Parts: sequence; structure tokens; C-alpha cells
Amino acid sequence: MGEVTCDITMSLDGYVAGPDQSFAHPLGVGAERLHRWQFEQREANADAVAGILGAGAYIMGRNMFTHGRGEWDLDWHGWWGEEPPYHAPTFVLTHHPREPLPMEGGTTFTFVTDGIAAALVQAREAAGDRRVAIAGGAQTVNQYLAAGLIDELRLHVAPVILGRGERLLDGVGDLDLRAPGDAPGTDLVTHLTYRIRR
Amino acid sequence: MGEVTCDITMSLDGYVAGPDQSFAHPLGVGAERLHRWQFEQREANADAVAGILGAGAYIMGRNMFTHGRGEWDLDWHGWWGEEPPYHAPTFVLTHHPREPLPMEGGTTFTFVTDGIAAALVQAREAAGDRRVAIAGGAQTVNQYLAAGLIDELRLHVAPVILGRGERLLDGVGDLDLRAPGDAPGTDLVTHLTYRIRR
Repeated sequence: MGEVTCDITMSLDGYVAGPDQSFAHPLGVGAERLHRWQFEQREANADAVAGILGAGAYIMGRNMFTHGRGEWDLDWHGWWGEEPPYHAPTFVLTHHPREPLPMEGGTTFTFVTDGIAAALVQAREAAGDRRVAIAGGAQTVNQYLAAGLIDELRLHVAPVILGRGERLLDGVGDLDLRAPGDAPGTDLVTHLTYRIRR
Repeated sequence: MGEVTCDITMSLDGYVAGPDQSFAHPLGVGAERLHRWQFEQREANADAVAGILGAGAYIMGRNMFTHGRGEWDLDWHGWWGEEPPYHAPTFVLTHHPREPLPMEGGTTFTFVTDGIAAALVQAREAAGDRRVAIAGGAQTVNQYLAAGLIDELRLHVAPVILGRGERLLDGVGDLDLRAPGDAPGTDLVTHLTYRIRR
């Protein structure tokens, strides 16, 4: 059975999204700066970028899928255009049942209404021997961490202070983490890969 | 004029001390784990350990000096025995005037009652061309960061989740930070050195 990984970009003060998230500011105000490394230094951070994708299945929270769009809006197909970058089964945690949404390039969004454990069972089945990636956002990652269901947490720490917003690692309890040893990075990001003992 | 540096060990969720600090638990409950790297892996982290000391002068908050002892207790000479590790003038921020306290080995504790800027003026004068180190704790570091008075923040991030306690980087405003590039570390700590543009 594949491992469960999570890649997420975090500010140095622990936020993965800024305050006042909305359709206009899907990451919250000011949080675009967190992701400069992915756009301005894609080659220098090629290994980290590659590691974000390449999973056998993905799980994301409803906020990551909708970001302020009503979940009842069946015309909404996510933020990623007709061919999302996942190219794999992608499970969206939600309270609103909806038919699976097949996209171009192999991504199918499947909406799961019975919780994080059930979503992981489905994602594992879909991924086979490959890993399952928890794609975000903060609340979803924190829930999986608190439940002890993530094997590897890959934090991409940006040299940004947000001051408020959605905090990662909040309410997750006492995790048994192993720091990565030397950590690669640039002036816009440091890549910290933590193993989590169950 | 020397630079102003700050070395501080932080949990992955942003705390430098645990909750319920007292004389019995000077770092707060559970926070001893933050500093395992300094005791168990001193050689593997020799560069980082050496960088914590070696400044021309130090500044610390009253909590770091007293940790629950009354500031009016003139028999209290700090936590470091008769020969503290600083071997340099060390300025303690406090509200209680007190005569300077010379210790063995070159450390003299000088008590400053007129604020962080005044303490920095005195420390710079004492340090000459050498750097001034802000020794902690969280509130003191946050005040100096918010005032834009630190040139280099050396975070030693331990793979520990404290959940609550004293948060670093809280209320410091929007700092202009430059991430370190590759960051050295072990399984118990990652050393992240940030340059701060004024």
C-alpha cells in the first residue's frame, strides 16, 4: 500500500492562506507571495515542484475546490481549467453529494460526503501501490495530521510573514516528527520533509 | 557598527516556550524537547552552537533572566551559575532598576529600564565593532523584529509540535525576509538563517 504524503506551502509564521479568502482572493489577502517560488524559480526548485504531483490519487478539502463558490454550483469545475494538473482520481471532501466530474487528462473529481477516513479508503483503492497526496487546504491537512494518517509532510516554507489567516499544524496534537537533515532551498523557499511516525 | 543577530530555537508550529512557565519549568511544560539538538547532537550542530555565542554584547528579556523569580529578588543571579556562557556585557530589559551584576568570566548583567531602543544603544556601545545578539525570549525578540532592529534571524527549528505557549513572529508586522538557500540540519533540528532587509 502506498504512503500518504502532503505537500503544502507555509509562511514562516505558520499560515498556508491569508485572511479574508474569497472568490477574488482564493488564497486570502497577501498569500500569493507564498507561492512565488513555484512561479519565479520553478527550475531551481524542480525536485520540489515534481514531488507535489505524481501521486496515484489526491484528496482535497471543499474550500480548495470551491474557494467561495457555492458547493451547490454544479457549473463549477474547480480552479484548474478543463485539464487539471492532477491527472489522477481526486477526492473532494464536502457535505454536498454530487456526481463524479471527469475532466480531461485523467483527473476525475469524486465528491465524498462521509469524512476523511472514508475518503482515504477510496483514494487508496484508486491509487493502488502508488501514494495518496493530501492536497490541502489547512483544515483538511490538520484533520489528517490529527488523525495520524500522514506519513510524510513536505513543508515548503516561504520567507513571508502573514500575521493571520489559516494556520497549519493547529490542533494536530503531539506528532512524532523526524526532521529532514539538510534541507534544500533558495532565497524564496526552504523545503522541509518530515517523516511522521505513527 | 556590528550587526544585530538573533538565535532562537522554535517548534515547527512556531513556539519558543511551552505553556505554564514557572520556576520549576522555566521553558514551559514540554519545551525541553526543543533543545535536544543542543545537548544530544552538539557536535553534529557545532556551527550553529558556536553561532549562538560569540557576540560582543547580549540583550535578553526579564523573563529569560528571572523565569518566575521575582525581579525584586536581588539574590537571583540568573540561570547560568557563577560563570554565565556569555562572557560579554549582557543587558536585561526590566521595569525594576538594579545595580549592574558582574559575574565571573566577563559577563556583566546590566539592567535597563528605559526600553528596547535604549538597551540596543547601550549594547552597541559595549560591543564596539562586534555584533549584538538578542538572546530571547519570544516577547523580546518579537519587539525587536517589529521595530525593524534585527539584521539576521537564525531560527533553529525543532521537529516538535507544542500546540500552545509563547509564539515567535507574532505581531511583528510584514518583515522583508530572504530565505537561506540550502539549510543544514539533523533529524532533531534545521538551521534557517534569514536576512532581514530594513
